[in-house]
Amino acid sequence: MALIVQKFGGTSLSSLNRIRWVANQVVKCKENGNKVLAVVSAMAGETNRLIELCKSVMDPPDERELDVITSSGEQVSSGLLAMMIKAMGYDAISFQGHQVRIITDNAHSKARILRIDDEKIRKALSDDKIIVVAGFQGVEEEGNVTTLGRGGSDLTAVSLAAVLNADSCELYKDDVDGIYTTDPGICEYARKLKKISYDEMLEMSSLGSKVLQARAVEFAKKFHVPIHVRPTSKPDAEGTWVVDEEEAMVEMESVVISGLTYDKDQSKITILHVPDQPGIAAKLFTPLGDEGIIVDMIVQNVSTKGHTDMTFTVPETDFKKSITIAKQVAKELGGRGVTSDDKIAKVSLVGVGMKTHSGVASKMFSQLAREGINILMISTSEIKISCVIDEKYTELAVRTLHEAFNLGVDK
Amino acid sequence: MALIVQKFGGTSLSSLNRIRWVANQVVKCKENGNKVLAVVSAMAGETNRLIELCKSVMDPPDERELDVITSSGEQVSSGLLAMMIKAMGYDAISFQGHQVRIITDNAHSKARILRIDDEKIRKALSDDKIIVVAGFQGVEEEGNVTTLGRGGSDLTAVSLAAVLNADSCELYKDDVDGIYTTDPGICEYARKLKKISYDEMLEMSSLGSKVLQARAVEFAKKFHVPIHVRPTSKPDAEGTWVVDEEEAMVEMESVVISGLTYDKDQSKITILHVPDQPGIAAKLFTPLGDEGIIVDMIVQNVSTKGHTDMTFTVPETDFKKSITIAKQVAKELGGRGVTSDDKIAKVSLVGVGMKTHSGVASKMFSQLAREGINILMISTSEIKISCVIDEKYTELAVRTLHEAFNLGVDK
Repeated sequence: MALIVQKFGGTSLSSLNRIRWVANQVVKCKENGNKVLAVVSAMAGETNRLIELCKSVMDPPDERELDVITSSGEQVSSGLLAMMIKAMGYDAISFQGHQVRIITDNAHSKARILRIDDEKIRKALSDDKIIVVAGFQGVEEEGNVTTLGRGGSDLTAVSLAAVLNADSCELYKDDVDGIYTTDPGICEYARKLKKISYDEMLEMSSLGSKVLQARAVEFAKKFHVPIHVRPTSKPDAEGTWVVDEEEAMVEMESVVISGLTYDKDQSKITILHVPDQPGIAAKLFTPLGDEGIIVDMIVQNVSTKGHTDMTFTVPETDFKKSITIAKQVAKELGGRGVTSDDKIAKVSLVGVGMKTHSGVASKMFSQLAREGINILMISTSEIKISCVIDEKYTELAVRTLHEAFNLGVDK
Repeated sequence: MALIVQKFGGTSLSSLNRIRWVANQVVKCKENGNKVLAVVSAMAGETNRLIELCKSVMDPPDERELDVITSSGEQVSSGLLAMMIKAMGYDAISFQGHQVRIITDNAHSKARILRIDDEKIRKALSDDKIIVVAGFQGVEEEGNVTTLGRGGSDLTAVSLAAVLNADSCELYKDDVDGIYTTDPGICEYARKLKKISYDEMLEMSSLGSKVLQARAVEFAKKFHVPIHVRPTSKPDAEGTWVVDEEEAMVEMESVVISGLTYDKDQSKITILHVPDQPGIAAKLFTPLGDEGIIVDMIVQNVSTKGHTDMTFTVPETDFKKSITIAKQVAKELGGRGVTSDDKIAKVSLVGVGMKTHSGVASKMFSQLAREGINILMISTSEIKISCVIDEKYTELAVRTLHEAFNLGVDK
């Protein structure tokens, strides 16, 4: 008998009718001969309502009490789903984070899971009950309530699937029906992937395909949990499986590139003509890090006469703050000033096949050149090549690369 | 340094302004040199909203899941109050039932407190924090969430006061400013009591003065917790203290009667002419008990020629069901049938002074007779005399007895 973990988001739980639909999905899985554990988010809008309530009391809200209050959303939805399943004549039971127990560190509102006691859940499963677990929440060692951050219910589902050695972890999504080669919104030939490896998914996630929480994918990779991204709109259709690289490769055969992502939320800053000495990079990036600014790409030019230019990208929201810091640092280092540009985009090819196939980078560069698109920065990893380009060429770049690497469906 | 437990009801927490007012009360108590622990109900209307939500899923709702869901109301209000106190610059921390931990039996929605672990709260108090505890909720041994029934936050407050050996337990009330000699609504001379004993309060509560939850008063009596019933409308005024009998007597001096209550929600049933044999009462009251019907007064007439009449009272809501059972029993016992009346009321005098003062009963009976009020049933206990009368005489009886026993304020 297989064990399936199913996770449902807030939109799927936004009304009694939707909760009844979810209960039906769970019961159907059970009727198909599986043991089932469902993980739920709060009813749509509830978490934001509670956060706003807190902010009207204290802004920013006290983090410990914020977690106490926001976790009540999943408490209610998990109880309601368990009750709905019971009303349909099946034995169900809800568990909160403190009941499972899901032990986290004490980083309120962004806690990391340390371990999960699975005894109670195993007992309930062996009693043939359907389990409903409140997502998003845990407790730290002292019993204080914690939450796992936005998208945290994905992480709850994957972690439970890992601990219980579940056969699969189905993540139901309202807005997508799987993982695509690229954004169908700007490329009509975008194709839904049957399988993708964890690493590729991570690159796709962090590069802008915001379907799965990156931490959930990391966790799934570490514990080899097969994730099935499924659309709530077509619950019987296959979505996309996120699996181990070996298994993903079996299906993909000669596929080198799995996906193509873009990110317009980027800006670029250059400090001109600074002395090329040890410690220069640290002098720049330490104050940026202290301000909580996440620097993505960093490129240092070849040194000319003992001086160099240093270029880096930051999210557009941190653009102004970063310029102020860069100017300060340039002054201290005796640089010739700072140039900047927030009208840029990053386009990235992702694929584990890159590890064994050469020529991907050169093909990407020449294809962009053929369309007259200038490359401003380049960054590579084992399974990814990213180019920063002028923002206005984003759609053109995505379409031409999608076609050049033959990612699409047949025209 | 004194330790004060303060309990605030839902109306006091119905808006951010009201929560701010509560936070001010708590901080004022702290500033007066006390350690403070506040117990809160859910924001007004929230518990009913959640119950309705549950009923729309399953009616009657599954009791375990109902407790999971309804307890979220106190979770939110406790977090908000702690946050509000923090926003005012004081160190505060909220505790849920599972964190304290408040251990109960597993009778969902009407659980009884078995014990309270006070370690975490004592630690937080010694760290000079203001404590906010979610009322109404606990966990049973297995960690399942339970709730204590309507008015359960009173019980949470009194129990914590008992365990922590608090100097007093202040119960803030929105609708009353203390305990009165009788209902000010029908007797303009009703007087607010300064002190009342636990037993008197219990008789007053169960007889219809629904100010405090009876179980909370029982608990306070058992552990000698001084309760101070205070009005939110006049937070600096003294309300009524509910205390040990000895202490209540010191103040009351020669007062024999403390209060006068009435209850119109009563009905009366008589089984006529049943054989006066052992076991007759059991045959009648066992089936009533099996149906969950609470019988209040029972009167058996003197036996005539081996037969007797048996009269009892039940709440009006159980009137019809009780008649059906009574008729069935009358038939089995060979009785002459059943008479009934739901237009009755019970009027009761309460006072520990009755234990040592004679003449109270005869004075009550003669006073009612003087007004032409016929007494239908009589029942007495150590500190209470109740008379069942025709419902239409209720107000007249209350006013005349209130005056006769000199309970009122000076005219």
